[in-house]
Amino acid sequence: MFKARLSEVQTAVQTALDEAVARQPEGPLRAPMHYALQGGKRLRAFLVLESAALFDLPQSQAMPAAAAVEALHAFSLVHDDMPCMDDDDLRRGQPTVHVKWDDATAVLAGDALQTLAFELCCDPVLGAPDRRIALVEALAKSSGAAGMCHGQALDIAAETAKTPLTLDQIISLQAGKTGALISFSVRAGAILAGADQTALRIYSDAVGLAFQIADDILDVTGDEAATGKRVGKDAGAGKATFVSLLGLQGAQTRAAELIETASDALSDYGDRAENLRDAARFVISRKT
Amino acid sequence: MFKARLSEVQTAVQTALDEAVARQPEGPLRAPMHYALQGGKRLRAFLVLESAALFDLPQSQAMPAAAAVEALHAFSLVHDDMPCMDDDDLRRGQPTVHVKWDDATAVLAGDALQTLAFELCCDPVLGAPDRRIALVEALAKSSGAAGMCHGQALDIAAETAKTPLTLDQIISLQAGKTGALISFSVRAGAILAGADQTALRIYSDAVGLAFQIADDILDVTGDEAATGKRVGKDAGAGKATFVSLLGLQGAQTRAAELIETASDALSDYGDRAENLRDAARFVISRKT
Repeated sequence: MFKARLSEVQTAVQTALDEAVARQPEGPLRAPMHYALQGGKRLRAFLVLESAALFDLPQSQAMPAAAAVEALHAFSLVHDDMPCMDDDDLRRGQPTVHVKWDDATAVLAGDALQTLAFELCCDPVLGAPDRRIALVEALAKSSGAAGMCHGQALDIAAETAKTPLTLDQIISLQAGKTGALISFSVRAGAILAGADQTALRIYSDAVGLAFQIADDILDVTGDEAATGKRVGKDAGAGKATFVSLLGLQGAQTRAAELIETASDALSDYGDRAENLRDAARFVISRKT
Repeated sequence: MFKARLSEVQTAVQTALDEAVARQPEGPLRAPMHYALQGGKRLRAFLVLESAALFDLPQSQAMPAAAAVEALHAFSLVHDDMPCMDDDDLRRGQPTVHVKWDDATAVLAGDALQTLAFELCCDPVLGAPDRRIALVEALAKSSGAAGMCHGQALDIAAETAKTPLTLDQIISLQAGKTGALISFSVRAGAILAGADQTALRIYSDAVGLAFQIADDILDVTGDEAATGKRVGKDAGAGKATFVSLLGLQGAQTRAAELIETASDALSDYGDRAENLRDAARFVISRKT
């Protein structure tokens, strides 16, 4: 059920993203932008569309917001993979943008993907101007020096730090690096509907943290062919992770507790939240 | 008169930018963002505020848009200066961000400055939501694969091209690289007022092109101490410029004609456009 729904979302959001890139003028950035937007789990897009469904917003109305969050995510991956950052040659099983093109193209295609994310939030189909400007503001807060970029900067600082991070510091780092954009995705429906975001914030805080714990677990237990990225990288770099701090068993227990917290938070939404509950469970059971 | 007004704008927009950075949470990106936002001519902010004045919008109302365009400009400079792009060590007479910090910090601080630009466009002081979302959309179109990033990508492609660009190709390149953001700045007042942008587009197209011709002239005739950046760089790299194509005299004549076109376009605005006419003249007379 969840897998079938995720697969539907993957197809629909890919179409929206491909159309958005096709609307850009021809030039050297269109091909690397298009390339960087292929594949991926599309979990963030799924969260946006399921959040919208809680408030009876049709998929066609929320789609530009789903495409926006995937464009912002793709921008962060293109920059994160660069040699001066995480230095990854492989992403989703394919050569990264700076490997396939060059570093300058990775900088500029990433920059243009961030811009595209904000442009997508302006689409009139999303609703009235007050809802769209609220969406832009929430996306900005999830992306910049208060969100994703902040978390990534803390992450890079941690790699060169003399002492490993504490658990609290890792939680704070991940709240920015992965949590902020997941939180935006989960709240997007409430933002577009002008509704209260409290329950969705509880859900997203818990799922965001569980997502990162699951990433750390996969770094230890994962299969390179399945994940499409190098395995054992963080452990090999002597980087503190949830697994190194809590042990494999402890990390798995913590993730399971967080998923329960997340599911409980959505009780007021009844059956309409079933896909979001499934998504929470998927986050800690995934193999990639 | 123009210089005094520009000086006022420099002070006011610097305050707005410093306050915007101070509102970001503490972390590794605040210092490099603050650093990258110091100095500069603030011509783009000036254009935003003078454009607003044409429609009787007070400076306090338009200020977040002026700060936004300077944040977006600063983002582009931080990334452009990186070793994989233009590889500049000096900007506004100071070490560039990647020299003072490192490449990863330059990528992330630049990314966060782009985000900040969009966040600033959400400020309620700018006006009703429909005006703010129009501002976000116009800023996005001036920045990404249809604007500044596109121009920069063409510029980098030109540096490695086997044959020098034609004049038409250079004009197209510069329309993106510098013209798009100048166009946004000049039109910002009309966007915030919900007014017609035709005359301002004519003005900005002409001034944007004249600005780049003046840059090419300064690359030949400029003084490194005054411009705060390396001189003779483009000519030394065998890069086609307006000066190499039209000659120094020809480039100066072309710039002067464009400034006349720009001034004439504003005749309907009468005396209120005097500062914008002065700005156009300044663009081709500046020494930095």
